[in-house]
Amino acid sequence: MRLDLVVKNGKVVTESDTFTADIGIKGKKIVKIAQEIDDDAEETIDAKGKYVMPGVIDAHTHLHMPFMGSHSVDNYKTGTIAAACGGVTSVIDYDVQQEGETLHEAVERKKKTAFDQGVAIDFSLHPGVTQWGQETIDEIPDLIKNGVPSFKVFTVYGAWQVKNETLLKLLDVTKRYGGLVNVHAENDDIIQMLNKKFEEEGTLDPLHHALSHPPEAEKEAVERLINLTNYMDSRLYIVHLSSKMGLEAIKHAQTQGTNIMCETCPQYLFLSTDNFKEPNFEGAKYVMSPPPREKEDQEALWTGLKFGFVKTIATDHCPFNFNKEKQNGKDDYKKIPNGAPGIETSLMLMYSEGVAKGRITINDLVRIMCTNPAKIFGMQDKGSIAIGKDADIVVYDPDAKWTMSIDKLHMNVDYTPYEGMPITGKPEVTISKGRVVARDGEFVGDTKWGEFVKRHLDY
Amino acid sequence: MRLDLVVKNGKVVTESDTFTADIGIKGKKIVKIAQEIDDDAEETIDAKGKYVMPGVIDAHTHLHMPFMGSHSVDNYKTGTIAAACGGVTSVIDYDVQQEGETLHEAVERKKKTAFDQGVAIDFSLHPGVTQWGQETIDEIPDLIKNGVPSFKVFTVYGAWQVKNETLLKLLDVTKRYGGLVNVHAENDDIIQMLNKKFEEEGTLDPLHHALSHPPEAEKEAVERLINLTNYMDSRLYIVHLSSKMGLEAIKHAQTQGTNIMCETCPQYLFLSTDNFKEPNFEGAKYVMSPPPREKEDQEALWTGLKFGFVKTIATDHCPFNFNKEKQNGKDDYKKIPNGAPGIETSLMLMYSEGVAKGRITINDLVRIMCTNPAKIFGMQDKGSIAIGKDADIVVYDPDAKWTMSIDKLHMNVDYTPYEGMPITGKPEVTISKGRVVARDGEFVGDTKWGEFVKRHLDY
Amino acid sequence: MRLDLVVKNGKVVTESDTFTADIGIKGKKIVKIAQEIDDDAEETIDAKGKYVMPGVIDAHTHLHMPFMGSHSVDNYKTGTIAAACGGVTSVIDYDVQQEGETLHEAVERKKKTAFDQGVAIDFSLHPGVTQWGQETIDEIPDLIKNGVPSFKVFTVYGAWQVKNETLLKLLDVTKRYGGLVNVHAENDDIIQMLNKKFEEEGTLDPLHHALSHPPEAEKEAVERLINLTNYMDSRLYIVHLSSKMGLEAIKHAQTQGTNIMCETCPQYLFLSTDNFKEPNFEGAKYVMSPPPREKEDQEALWTGLKFGFVKTIATDHCPFNFNKEKQNGKDDYKKIPNGAPGIETSLMLMYSEGVAKGRITINDLVRIMCTNPAKIFGMQDKGSIAIGKDADIVVYDPDAKWTMSIDKLHMNVDYTPYEGMPITGKPEVTISKGRVVARDGEFVGDTKWGEFVKRHLDY
Amino acid sequence: MRLDLVVKNGKVVTESDTFTADIGIKGKKIVKIAQEIDDDAEETIDAKGKYVMPGVIDAHTHLHMPFMGSHSVDNYKTGTIAAACGGVTSVIDYDVQQEGETLHEAVERKKKTAFDQGVAIDFSLHPGVTQWGQETIDEIPDLIKNGVPSFKVFTVYGAWQVKNETLLKLLDVTKRYGGLVNVHAENDDIIQMLNKKFEEEGTLDPLHHALSHPPEAEKEAVERLINLTNYMDSRLYIVHLSSKMGLEAIKHAQTQGTNIMCETCPQYLFLSTDNFKEPNFEGAKYVMSPPPREKEDQEALWTGLKFGFVKTIATDHCPFNFNKEKQNGKDDYKKIPNGAPGIETSLMLMYSEGVAKGRITINDLVRIMCTNPAKIFGMQDKGSIAIGKDADIVVYDPDAKWTMSIDKLHMNVDYTPYEGMPITGKPEVTISKGRVVARDGEFVGDTKWGEFVKRHLDY
Repeated sequence: MRLDLVVKNGKVVTESDTFTADIGIKGKKIVKIAQEIDDDAEETIDAKGKYVMPGVIDAHTHLHMPFMGSHSVDNYKTGTIAAACGGVTSVIDYDVQQEGETLHEAVERKKKTAFDQGVAIDFSLHPGVTQWGQETIDEIPDLIKNGVPSFKVFTVYGAWQVKNETLLKLLDVTKRYGGLVNVHAENDDIIQMLNKKFEEEGTLDPLHHALSHPPEAEKEAVERLINLTNYMDSRLYIVHLSSKMGLEAIKHAQTQGTNIMCETCPQYLFLSTDNFKEPNFEGAKYVMSPPPREKEDQEALWTGLKFGFVKTIATDHCPFNFNKEKQNGKDDYKKIPNGAPGIETSLMLMYSEGVAKGRITINDLVRIMCTNPAKIFGMQDKGSIAIGKDADIVVYDPDAKWTMSIDKLHMNVDYTPYEGMPITGKPEVTISKGRVVARDGEFVGDTKWGEFVKRHLDY
Repeated sequence: MRLDLVVKNGKVVTESDTFTADIGIKGKKIVKIAQEIDDDAEETIDAKGKYVMPGVIDAHTHLHMPFMGSHSVDNYKTGTIAAACGGVTSVIDYDVQQEGETLHEAVERKKKTAFDQGVAIDFSLHPGVTQWGQETIDEIPDLIKNGVPSFKVFTVYGAWQVKNETLLKLLDVTKRYGGLVNVHAENDDIIQMLNKKFEEEGTLDPLHHALSHPPEAEKEAVERLINLTNYMDSRLYIVHLSSKMGLEAIKHAQTQGTNIMCETCPQYLFLSTDNFKEPNFEGAKYVMSPPPREKEDQEALWTGLKFGFVKTIATDHCPFNFNKEKQNGKDDYKKIPNGAPGIETSLMLMYSEGVAKGRITINDLVRIMCTNPAKIFGMQDKGSIAIGKDADIVVYDPDAKWTMSIDKLHMNVDYTPYEGMPITGKPEVTISKGRVVARDGEFVGDTKWGEFVKRHLDY
Repeated sequence: MRLDLVVKNGKVVTESDTFTADIGIKGKKIVKIAQEIDDDAEETIDAKGKYVMPGVIDAHTHLHMPFMGSHSVDNYKTGTIAAACGGVTSVIDYDVQQEGETLHEAVERKKKTAFDQGVAIDFSLHPGVTQWGQETIDEIPDLIKNGVPSFKVFTVYGAWQVKNETLLKLLDVTKRYGGLVNVHAENDDIIQMLNKKFEEEGTLDPLHHALSHPPEAEKEAVERLINLTNYMDSRLYIVHLSSKMGLEAIKHAQTQGTNIMCETCPQYLFLSTDNFKEPNFEGAKYVMSPPPREKEDQEALWTGLKFGFVKTIATDHCPFNFNKEKQNGKDDYKKIPNGAPGIETSLMLMYSEGVAKGRITINDLVRIMCTNPAKIFGMQDKGSIAIGKDADIVVYDPDAKWTMSIDKLHMNVDYTPYEGMPITGKPEVTISKGRVVARDGEFVGDTKWGEFVKRHLDY
Repeated sequence: MRLDLVVKNGKVVTESDTFTADIGIKGKKIVKIAQEIDDDAEETIDAKGKYVMPGVIDAHTHLHMPFMGSHSVDNYKTGTIAAACGGVTSVIDYDVQQEGETLHEAVERKKKTAFDQGVAIDFSLHPGVTQWGQETIDEIPDLIKNGVPSFKVFTVYGAWQVKNETLLKLLDVTKRYGGLVNVHAENDDIIQMLNKKFEEEGTLDPLHHALSHPPEAEKEAVERLINLTNYMDSRLYIVHLSSKMGLEAIKHAQTQGTNIMCETCPQYLFLSTDNFKEPNFEGAKYVMSPPPREKEDQEALWTGLKFGFVKTIATDHCPFNFNKEKQNGKDDYKKIPNGAPGIETSLMLMYSEGVAKGRITINDLVRIMCTNPAKIFGMQDKGSIAIGKDADIVVYDPDAKWTMSIDKLHMNVDYTPYEGMPITGKPEVTISKGRVVARDGEFVGDTKWGEFVKRHLDY
C-alpha cells in the first residue's frame, strides 16, 4: 500500500502508552503503526527525538462571538490558523442562541459563518441555550441525533442566565437522549451585589472585576448544580472551573457517584489575582469570568488534573485587543470585554509548565487535552493515535527553549497574558486529517480544509 | 519483514481506544498494528468479531504458599497453566519471608520453586516482610534496583503483623528509592476479640469467620494507613479491599491528594455474607480474609472501579480443596485454611458481569486488569497493545454463552465459588510473548516458557 | 415578703439542672427559689412528684393565617387557649407581609388582630418578607430596634419566593443590626417540575403531595442557604427541617463554623410518608410542606436534637379541618391547604416519646423547647426558671397515662395527626406570668392576658 | 431559717442563665436563691458588680505525680491551695497504676497521699490503667459502683502504652457498667521515629520536643480511637486535645453520632510552637505532650469551645521547676520532665482572653469549666448554682486589671508560662462547700477540708 504520509521514529504518545514507532497515514486516516514502516510514501516526516501525539481538541472557544455590536477579534479564519500553529486540530466553539432563534438556526448560522470566513481545522459547536420555551427543549433530541449533543447554559449574564426550570428539563432531556449540559457556574446574585457595591464606592478598576467574582460564588453554583444533577440522575460538565472551593465540591460529589465533570483552563493555572494589579490598566488583559484566583487554587487544580478529578483543559479563547476593545472599560471594569486569547498557547503552556516541570506526565497531557475531550464530547475519530483514527497529529519538540511573545503568535490580537514567559518545547508539525497544516510555527494549510464534525456521546 | 504471528481483523482494545486492526508480532514483541497487514507470517489467527486485548496481569496470587506444613494446592505449574487458560499472561506472586530468611533469599527461594515446578507465563514476586530488623529495611534499595520494588505487609496474622515502626521505615525507604508498600488492611485486635468471643460462645461455623472480620476492622486499618502514608508523604497500595466503609475512607483520602491506591477482587464483587450460610459446611469454600461483604459493598466497589477510585482487580488466588484442606476447620472456622481459587476465572467474571452487563466498558476492563497493574507495579513491557510491548494478548470471544463449572477449569482444586453461574464471553486464544499458550480453553504452551520479570516503578 | 404564688416540692428543671425546690412568685416574676419557702402566699400549688419546668415557647405558628380567602382555623383566641392547655406560654407567630404593605404595617395589623380576637398568653411576631423593594430592607433596623428582630422568607410559594438579591440584603442588614433571617428551605423548581409531571400523569392524591417534595429539594435549598450565609458571614435559622439529607448539610456547616441553626417539628419525628397512604383521603391530614419523611429521617433528627445540631422544636401550627378545608383538594393535592394542628400537643409528644422513652433527657427537652427558643429569638425574660424571669411555668405530671384524642384537645379543628397515640405525662398546671391559665387540661385564664413581647437578640 | 452565708447582689451565672440574685447557704449547700434574702445570716458577702459562678472543676491534674524517682512539684497541699486561690473548688487527679498494683490499691494509695499531705478542696481520682491483665478489667465494675467511674489510658509512654486488646475491653466494660475511658491520644511510633531521627541529627533542644510530636500523630490516634469507640458502640473522652487536625476528626465523628468528647487546656489556646524558641533554654518551660501548636490550631479550639464540639477545659497541671527539674534536659529534650503549672491560672486566663475579649460568653465559661466537667465525670452535687448543690462558688470581679506573675501565684513552682500577660478579672472569693477558702488572692481555708467525691455517671 502506498502511504500518503509517514511520521518516522517519534515517541508516540497515547493516554495509555509511550513507545517509539512509525505512523503511516493514508488519506485522512492513521492506517499503520509499526516499529518500522518501509512502505513507499508521498511524504515522510522525521520525528526522531520528538513526541508524536494526538492533536489537541480545544473544547471551549468563542470565535467571532457577537459582543456589544462587534465580535471577539479572532474569527474562524484567524482563530483556526492560530490553533493549528499551536498544535490544535479541532475546536468546539460556543454558539449562543440569539433572541428568537432556534438552536438549529444557531447551529446553521455559525456553521455558515465558519465556512464563509474559512476554517483551517475541524470544528464542532456547543449551542448555548438562551431561549427558555418548551420548543427549545423539544429541539434537543433531533440535534443530538444529528451530531450536536452538548449544550451550554450560564448561571450568570442577565438574560442569558438559565432558568432553573429549563436547567432541570435540559438535564432530563440530555439524559434520555444521550446529550450533555455544559455550565458556566457562578452565583449571579453575589456578583451583582458586589458590582453595585463597587459602583457605589467608585472602585471600578480591573482588580475589582476579580473581587466582584469571589470563589464562593463559584462554589455555590457548583454545589447547586451537583444537587440538581444528582437529583435528576443525569450528568453535567462544568466549564472553566477556577477555584479550589469549587473543586473540593466536585471531588466530593465524584466520590459519591455523581457524574459531574469539569474543565479548567491555563489561565487558572498560570495567572492570579496579582495580575489584575498590574499598572497602566494592564489588569484589563486578564478580565474574564471567572477570574484567575490565588496560588492555592492553582495548586489544587494541578493536583486535580493529575489525579483525574479535573477531566480536561480548554482555553475559553475569547480575545479582545488591549489597546482597543479592552479600553472601553477604562473607567469601569464592567465595560471591559470579558475574555483573553489562548487558543494557540495552551499546549505550549501545559507542556512547558506541566510535563517539563514534572507536574503531569506526557500521557496525562494527552489524556486531558486530547483523549478526554474527544470522549466526553463524542469525537470518536479523534483524540488518540490508533488505527482508523483521523490523522490529527502533532510532532512536538520537547527540547526547544524560547520565550513566549505575541510577536511569535498568530492570534489576531495585540497581547498574550503570558508575554515573556520562558517556554520549553514547541509544536514542530501539526497534521490535520493527514495533511500538514502548520510547520515550524507557520501555517501551511488551507482555510477550506476544516469540516464540521458530527459528534455522538457513547457513554 | 516476515512476521511470526499476525492476529487479524479483531477489535483491538487499549485503556484508551477500541479499533479494528491487525496485529503483527515478531519474536516476543508487537511490531505492527495496521488496518491491514499483508506481510507474510508464520501463523495467522483470525479474530474477526473478537476483542484483541492485552493479557491480564494478576498482581495478587499465592502459588504453592506454605501453609500449616503443606501448601496452597496450585503450584507454579498448575497455577500458571490455569492462568493461561483464563487469559492471564503475568502473575505477581506473594513471597512471604520465612523466619530467619532475608528478603533476597526469599526471592531466590521462590524463583527457584517456580522454575523447578515449571511456570507457563511470566511472573514476578512481591516479597512479604515479616522480619523486623533494620537489616531487612537495608535490603530494600538493592531489591528495588534489581527489579523487585513492591513489598507486602500484613496488619493481621500474629507474628506476621507488621510493627508500626517497621511500616514507617518501609514507607520511608520505598519513597526514597522508588518502591511501593502493599498492605493487607484489617484491625487485628477486633478480629482477635471476636474470635475469643465466638470461641466462648461455641459458634464456630464458617459464617462466624465472616462475622469475626467486620468491615469496621478494615476501615480502621485503612484510615490508620492513610494517616501514616500521608504523614510520611509516601504512597501505599491496599490489597483486596472488600468494604464500602474502607472505600469511602480511600476516596476521601484521594480527594485530599494522598497517593493511596487500592485493589479489589472478584470475590468482593460477586460473593456475599450469604454464601457463608450455605448448608453442609459449604460456607467454608468462601473462607478468606477479608470475607465477602454485602450487596451495598459490592455496588460501592463497582462504582469505585468505574470512576477510577479502585485501581485494579487481582484474585488473591489461594486455593484449598473443599473436600480436603477446608475440612480441617469442620469444627472451628479458625482452622479452615483461608483462601479460594480465582486465577483462571477473573477475566471471565469481569467481562461477563462487568462489560456484558454494562457496569464497565471494555476499556475500563483493560485499564483495571492489564494497564493499571502494569503501571502500578512497573511492568513497562506489558499491560497494553502498543509497538514494542510484549505480545501478551488475549483473543476474547464476547458472544460465547456457557455455564461456569469446575469441570471446565484447570485449577488444581475441587471447586469454584462461581459454580453454575451463567457466563457471557470466553478467552479463545492466549498469547504469551508471541506464543500461543492456550487455545479454546486448553493449555498448549510450555511450562519452561515463563520468565522472571524485573520491574521498575517510574511514577 | 408576701408572695403571690408558691409552687412547692416540685422537681425544678432547667437546661442545666434538675433539683427539688419551691418556687416563689411575686407579680409576674420568679423571685425566690429555695429548698423550702415558708413565706405566706396568696396561692400554693403542690408539685410533689411533678416536674416544674419553664413554659414552652412555640416559635413557629400560623394563627388566623390568611389562606385562599379564608384563614387557618385557629385564631388568636382559640389557638392561644389551646397552647396554654398544652403547656405553651409564648408563641411567635408568622406574619406575612401582604401586597403593598410595609413590614411595620404587617406587624401592627397582626398585633391588632391578636388583641381584637383575644390572646391568652404572650406572643411575638416574625414578619414574613414578600415585598422586594429596598424600602422593605430599610425598615429592618427600626423593627429590630423596636423588638421585632427576626424575619421570615420562603424559597417556595410563587410570589412569596424570596429573590436572592433580597436574601443577600437581609443577611447583610440583620448581621449589621442584630437580627435573624428564618427560612423555609425547599427548592421550588424541583417541586414545580414534579407538580407538572403528576398533573400530566393524573396522580393527584395526597401521597403525591409528599412525592412532589423530595428530600433532595430540601437539601439543595439548605446548601444554597449555607453558602450564602457563609459568604455574607451572617447567621441563619432554617425552619421546620425535615430530612436527614438536610441535616447532614447543616451538621457539616456547623463543624466548619457557619452559624446555621435549625428547628424541627414533632411531625417530622412522629409521622412519615406512610401516613399519606391512609385510606379515604385521610392522607390529606398530613399535607404540609415539607412533608414528613421516612424512619431514618426521624432517627437522624432525634440524634440531632440530642447532640445539639438541631436547636429547637416548634410546631408550624397551621390547622385546617379535615372535613372542610382539606376536602378542597379531594381531586388535586395541590388544592389541599398545607398545614396541620400541633400547638397544643408538642410538649406532650416530646415528653412522652422523647423523655419517657429515653431518647432525650428532661433537661434536653427544656433546652430545645424553652431555653433555646428564648435565646435564639431574644426573649430574655422567658425560657428558664431563674430569679427575675417571667413566671411562665408548667407543672408537668410525668406519670399520667392517657390516649391522645381530638376530643380531649382545645384546638379549633376536627382532627389531630396523633389520634389514638398512647401518651405518658401531661401538663397539670400552666402558669403565664404568675397566673394560672390552665389546670388539669382546662383553660382557666383570660384572653386579655397575653401581651406583645419585644425581643432583642444579644448574641 | 438562719443561714450560714449569704452572697448578696451578685450576677449569678449558670450554663443557662445570668441573673441578679442573692444566694443563701446553709451548711455545705445552696438552699436559697432569691431577688432579696433578708434572712439573718452568720456571714454576708457583698457581690455587687461581681459574677457569682460555680467553682471550677479541674478534671485533669497531676499532683505529686511520681516522676523519675521524684514527683511533680505541687503536692496535694500546695496544689489545692493554689487551686482554691484560682477559683477551683474540685480537682480530679490522675492516679496511674504502679507496677503490680491493682486499681483499687492505686486509688487507696493516692487517697491516703491526699489526706496525709492535706487537701484544701474536694477531689476525685481517675485511675490510670497500666497493668494489662484481665484482673484489671475485672476490677472495673466494682470501682464504678464505688464512685470511681473514669479511667485513663495512654497511647504513648512505653510500658504505659495501652494494648489495643485492653482498650477494647475497657470500652466494653465501661459501656456496660456506666464508666468512661479517658485517653491521651498520640501515635507513639511517629514520635519514636522522630526522637531517633533527632538523636541521630543531634538536634536535642526544646523546640525539637515540639517537632517530635507533630499534629498528624494526634490525628492518627484520634481517628483510631473514634473507629474503635464507634465499633464498640461505647463512648470516649480525649484529654488535652491540641490540634485542629484532631478536632476536625472529632467534629466529623460527632456529626455521625459517635459519642466522642474532648477536653482542651489553656496552653493550647495561648501558647504556640514559637514559645519553644525562647532563648536560654526557656523553651523547656513549655515542654509537655502534646505540645502547643500554631495560631490556626488555637483558633480552631476556640471555635470548638464556643460551638460545643470541645466540651471542657482542664489544665493537665503537672509542674516542674525551670531552674531545677527542667534543667535535667539541658542537653536532651527527652530528659526534660513533661508538664507545666496551670491549676491556679485557668479561670483567670479563660475569663480574660475568652469572656472579656468576647470569644465566649460567661455562660459558655461556666459550661466548659464547671457544668460539663461535673456532668461528664458524674459530680452531681457540683458544677452549677442551684438548690441542693454544694455551695462551691466563686465571686469573680470582672473588672480587675493586673499582670500575671509567678510572684502573685501560689503554685509551688518557679514560673508560669503566662508571666507578664495582662489580665482582666480576678477571683475575689472562693467558697468550697459553704466555706470561704480563698479571699483576695490569699488562701484562708483549711487543708483538712477537702473530701473525696464519689462520682456516678448518669448519662
